Parts: sequence; C-alpha cells; structure tokens
Amino acid sequence: MMRRVAVIGTGHSKFCYNSPKTSVELLAEVAMDAINEAHITPGDIQAVNVGNVLGDFEEGQGMVQSFLANDIGCFNVPASRFEGACASGSMAVRDAVMWVASGYYDIMLVGGVEKCTAMGTGLATRTFAMFGDARYEFPAGFTFPAVFALLTHLYASKYKIPLATLKEQMAAVSIQSHEYAMKNPNAQIQKLISKEDVLNSFMVSTPIQLNDSCPFSDGAAALVIASEETAKKLVKKPVYFTGIGQSSSGKLSSQYKYLPRIRARELAVQQSYGMAGLTPRDMDLCELHDCFSIAALIAAEGLGFFEFGTAGRAWEKGETRLGGRIPINLSGGLKAKGHPIGASGVSMVYEVARQLRGDMVEQGRQVEGAKHGLVDTLGGDGVIISMILSAA
Amino acid sequence: MMRRVAVIGTGHSKFCYNSPKTSVELLAEVAMDAINEAHITPGDIQAVNVGNVLGDFEEGQGMVQSFLANDIGCFNVPASRFEGACASGSMAVRDAVMWVASGYYDIMLVGGVEKCTAMGTGLATRTFAMFGDARYEFPAGFTFPAVFALLTHLYASKYKIPLATLKEQMAAVSIQSHEYAMKNPNAQIQKLISKEDVLNSFMVSTPIQLNDSCPFSDGAAALVIASEETAKKLVKKPVYFTGIGQSSSGKLSSQYKYLPRIRARELAVQQSYGMAGLTPRDMDLCELHDCFSIAALIAAEGLGFFEFGTAGRAWEKGETRLGGRIPINLSGGLKAKGHPIGASGVSMVYEVARQLRGDMVEQGRQVEGAKHGLVDTLGGDGVIISMILSAA
Repeated sequence: MMRRVAVIGTGHSKFCYNSPKTSVELLAEVAMDAINEAHITPGDIQAVNVGNVLGDFEEGQGMVQSFLANDIGCFNVPASRFEGACASGSMAVRDAVMWVASGYYDIMLVGGVEKCTAMGTGLATRTFAMFGDARYEFPAGFTFPAVFALLTHLYASKYKIPLATLKEQMAAVSIQSHEYAMKNPNAQIQKLISKEDVLNSFMVSTPIQLNDSCPFSDGAAALVIASEETAKKLVKKPVYFTGIGQSSSGKLSSQYKYLPRIRARELAVQQSYGMAGLTPRDMDLCELHDCFSIAALIAAEGLGFFEFGTAGRAWEKGETRLGGRIPINLSGGLKAKGHPIGASGVSMVYEVARQLRGDMVEQGRQVEGAKHGLVDTLGGDGVIISMILSAA
Repeated sequence: MMRRVAVIGTGHSKFCYNSPKTSVELLAEVAMDAINEAHITPGDIQAVNVGNVLGDFEEGQGMVQSFLANDIGCFNVPASRFEGACASGSMAVRDAVMWVASGYYDIMLVGGVEKCTAMGTGLATRTFAMFGDARYEFPAGFTFPAVFALLTHLYASKYKIPLATLKEQMAAVSIQSHEYAMKNPNAQIQKLISKEDVLNSFMVSTPIQLNDSCPFSDGAAALVIASEETAKKLVKKPVYFTGIGQSSSGKLSSQYKYLPRIRARELAVQQSYGMAGLTPRDMDLCELHDCFSIAALIAAEGLGFFEFGTAGRAWEKGETRLGGRIPINLSGGLKAKGHPIGASGVSMVYEVARQLRGDMVEQGRQVEGAKHGLVDTLGGDGVIISMILSAA
C-alpha cells in the first residue's frame, strides 16, 4: 500500500424492519454523521463510493450514489456504486482505500445501504438468490438458506461431528450474538434467546432454523476516509487500514473439492495479514460474516482463529466473548445487529474502527486496549473481502 | 496519474437482439478474445472489473463478475461489479486504470455486459427509468425518452432554433451513425436510413421519434489493461490512457439552471483534458453518448468540439464524418452499433483503442494517423465518465 489511509468519520443508522426512509435518505443521514465527526464539510469530499445490492428491486432506484452525493452537497464528485452481493459495502471500502492510498484523492466518503424488508421474506429470499449461480444452481433449489444447509451437512460430515452436537454449537453463536446486540443501540433485534429458542425455532432449510439465520434488514452506514497526513490534522484518533484483501469464487459446484472451507476467504485474509505484517494472534477483535450460524464457524476457522472443526466448541467455551481469546461480533453480528446487505461491510468497519478508538466503553462492550481488528465479509457464492484496521 | 496504463487486448461481441447466451457466456467469449490478443493466459489476470446494470432483472443473475472470472480460469482473483447506469462499463475501466496506475496490479481484465432485450421494450424502458430519480421524477413520467424530449425542447428554446430545424439536425446524427454502422461488423443495425425514415418514424415521446433513439441491445466487450512496462513486453501497439475524468449530478430537477448543458460532463472532460495536457483540438476522433440524437449534440458541445447550439449544423455539414473536423461515432454509435448499457463504455474504449492502433483500415473507417481519441459516457441522470486514449 502506497500511503496510509485512515477512518476519520463514522455514521450508522439503527438497523430495522420497514424503514420509512428511502435509501438515499438513509445514506444521507449517516453520511452527514460521518462528515461531521471528521470535522469536514460535504465540499471537502472528493469522491464517493457506495455499496448497494438491490436498490432497483427494493424501491425502483438504481445509482443511489449520485443522488446521495448531490443531496448532501457533494456536488459533481465522482460517485460509483459497487455490487458484490453481501460484500458490496466492503468492496466499496477497499476500492476507496486504494484511491486514497495511491495519492489520487485525500478524502473520500464511503457508504452502504439496503432496504430489503418491504418486499417481504419470500421475495427477499428469491432476490438474494440471484447472487448464486442463476442458470444451473438456483433452479435446483439453491437459495442461500439451502446453501448453508448444505454447508452444515458437509461440515458435520467432514469434521465427524454429530449433527445434533453441531446444532448446539451453532446455537451458541446465535445466543452470544443476541446477548451483545442488547448492548448495541443500532442493533435490529434486542432480545435474549436461549438454546431452546434456537432449537425450537421454525425450520427454514433443514437443518438451518430461523434462529440460525440473520434477519432481513433496512439500514445504512458510512465512513469518511483520508490520507494519514490529512487524518492527523482533522481528528485525534484516526484508525488505519493496515491490510486489505479480496478474492472471488465461481459457482458453488466449482468449489466442491474445498467446501465447507471457502478458499476465497483464506486467500483474501492471507493478503490482509501479509500486507499488515500481522497474524491471527495479533487480532484483538473480529467482525465476521455470520449470515447463518454455520457461516460464523466456517469464517472463524478460515480466518485462522481456530483449528478446522473446532470453532463451535470455542463459541461454547466463551472464547469468542469479550475477554475471550478472540472477541467476535461484539456488535451482535449479522444475526442480531441485522444485515442490510449493501451496508453490512461498511457497518463492520464502523464497529471495528470504533472499538479501536475506544468508543464502546459506555455500551459495555469495549475490548480494552484493542490495537488490531479484522473485518470479514462474504458475498454470494464467494466474494470475500478482508480488512485489518489498526489503532494509531 | 502515477504510471502509464495501456490497453493491450480487446474483445467485442456482435451487438444484437435476443442473444441466446447468458451474460456470463457473452462476457467469457469477449474476455478470452482480449486475453488472447494480449498474449497472456487467464492466470496472468490479477483482478477483474465488470460493468453491468440489470443482470438481476434480465436473467436473475447478480454478481456476474465472479462467475465470469471463475469460468474463464481467473481463479480467486478480486472481481468487482460497477454500476453507474449506462456509464457502468466506463466506471469499471476508469477504476481499473487507477489500480494499475497505482502499481497495485500489473494486468487487469475489464468487461461490460448487458442483456436488455428479452424483457421487451416496455419493461426495458421501465427498468432503465430506475436510473433517474425514482421517488419524485419517475412518477411524473420521466422515462429516459421523456428526459431527452425535455432536453430537446430546452435546447431549441435556449439556442433559438425552430424545432423543425432542430429535428432535421438531429436526423443528420442518426443518418450518419447508420451509415458508419454498415462498416462495423459488430453493429446491431445494418441498414441505411434517410431523413424521411427518421422524421416519419414512430413518435416515442414528443419530439423524440424512434429513429432519434438507440435500440435495446444484448452484448459484451472486454479489455486487458496493463502497466506500460508490462504492455511493452507483450504487444507491439499499446494504446495509453492519458486522461480520465468522472463527475456526477443529482436528480434532473437539481440541474435545472444548467440544462440542456450537462455540468457533470463539462467537469469530467476538463479533468481528462487537464490530465492529458491536451485540448479538444488535439482529439482525432471521439466516441460519445448518443442514446438519443439530441444527446449527441449536447455531448459534442460539452466536450468542446463545437460552440453551444451549433453541433447540429456541424453534423449536417459533415464535420463529424471521417475526414471532417472531428470524426464522431465512426462505430455507428449507440444509435446503430447498439447500446447494451453495461457494455457500452467498454465498447467505446474498444473502438477508440482500435482506431489508435490503425485496425480499422479494412473496415473502411480508419482515421488516418489518429493519435488521440476521446470516450464520453453518460449514465442515468448524470454520471459522466471521460477518457482520453493516445497512441504510443
């Protein structure tokens, strides 16, 4: 990376069901929060990147980035939209980091937004499925709950874990996420759940149950990022991107030799660790992609935090809790914080950046003295983006 | 720009109605053509950028870039999709130029694809309208034919040209485009048209008629781009990006003081001219965004080729023809080459790069000794991307 790039402003809406605001309105609010926090004005923004997946299906609005930029007073700047399914927001962030790192821009705004809920669960499940292979796999029934049901079976089989045992481990993921979401005012679901709540919940796609699954969500998040020199002039605690990585896979069937491991994840995070000169042991916290509870286990292992096949036990033993070996998804994760798909990657960076600034004390979920945090986002059948952030 | 970036491989499908191929298949073919022309293999590609607007609506396939990359053997590379309406392809190109210019990658693949036709003209017009403002303007009837009908009236009024006279000037744009498309084997429409054919054609949105309008199209285009050092090792005639610019506008109503001029265009092309150290007079050819004939007049003036209000006369006098002052849209333009929206920006770069390599002699439309060419793409209510390419 050519020069250091920092997060200097953050904004985050409450994630929720059926927001009355448009995507542009949701984005505009969080963007202004990020701009104000960075002690700049909209006229200082030189370019805008936005992650958004389904604005056209959701409200008949494509190209949200241009309308956002104009509405908040970032007139005539370059504004680009990125789509990598649930990793769209992270894609927009990573790209912006390069534009600033290269010296081309000094200050950029990055946003992510989604309004998935108005279309209802059935249609949302159908539209999300467009980010798997549409020609061969979707007609065979591969919506995303089905994909992760398949991965659950493969995981149980590969690591020789009885399915009932694995289901209890998966429940531990959801239970922990709900617990931390109680401490996050932006979280969509504010309700403790028990193991029974998970194991008795509606069966979505055997063996994935409702409480193994994240909700559909509306919401937005935004960041202002800047070069190190500019960041130091503007804010007291810039948080730096020290590693960025991205990798893709093709359709699920092309990955059959590697599943349930996701090779794209392992390659992307290697890029991040390599660029940062850090290892999994150096990470003080992680926000990872738990769209389904099994996804959290697969991610935590692929990122290097636990041996393959052991992440479920780690969750059960509390190793992923505050004070544990590697605190994971203290935000409540996609499961309970919510998952407005285009916003999620930006939201993860928001969470990690605020932890590294020490902002989570009041909410009772601060990782004390955190120096390095990892963001992991999965999009569709296999876009993975990894980013490491480090305190100054 | 940090280091010079070149086009070293090009691929282009025939633009057509109702392609039987999927977007991924269309992209894969042109990508392999570009890769072969660059004398590399898919494994040499370090990252992939793709412009695509409506894959989800068209064939239920989002995130085409990952499936493309995997299908052609670019395994696990970062693959990103860009959406800026009709400028999506150009957005993907400009972004890739920066990733290579910055030194982060040496060789990238950029593609653009669209399959607009299977949904039929009515639905296509509706889905395209999502790239205007969805909340306030679309409900008032603003599909894109209506937008350009409005601009036609504003143009006639501002420059005091009787509408009947302006309509004849606009006809000259379409007539010329159809003529050159006869020489372009990739063009969708291979048919000469007369002034009567234009002025007697179906009224789409008064005063925009069918032959003032580009068709809906399926098609794809691809480029391999590389750093100067790598380019020189691989090909005899690299063509360099010497200027890139991008700018956005908000909803149409926010632009009322400036219309029918498009301020985003004028700012974007200033960026390009400034970076290249060149002026409109230095351009030997131009591919510009003639989604409707009036759009071509507005573009040619905004790019600095003609005084405001005079571009129509220039077309009538043949100044935009081969051998004229500034040859424009020798490919046939969107009007007759076709306009698969996500592909169009990449297609424009393809055309200009091939002209600068001297590849158009056989087709009888080579601009002799061309050194510099300009690409201009308009997306939705106002994303503009300008790129200048220069022969070695």
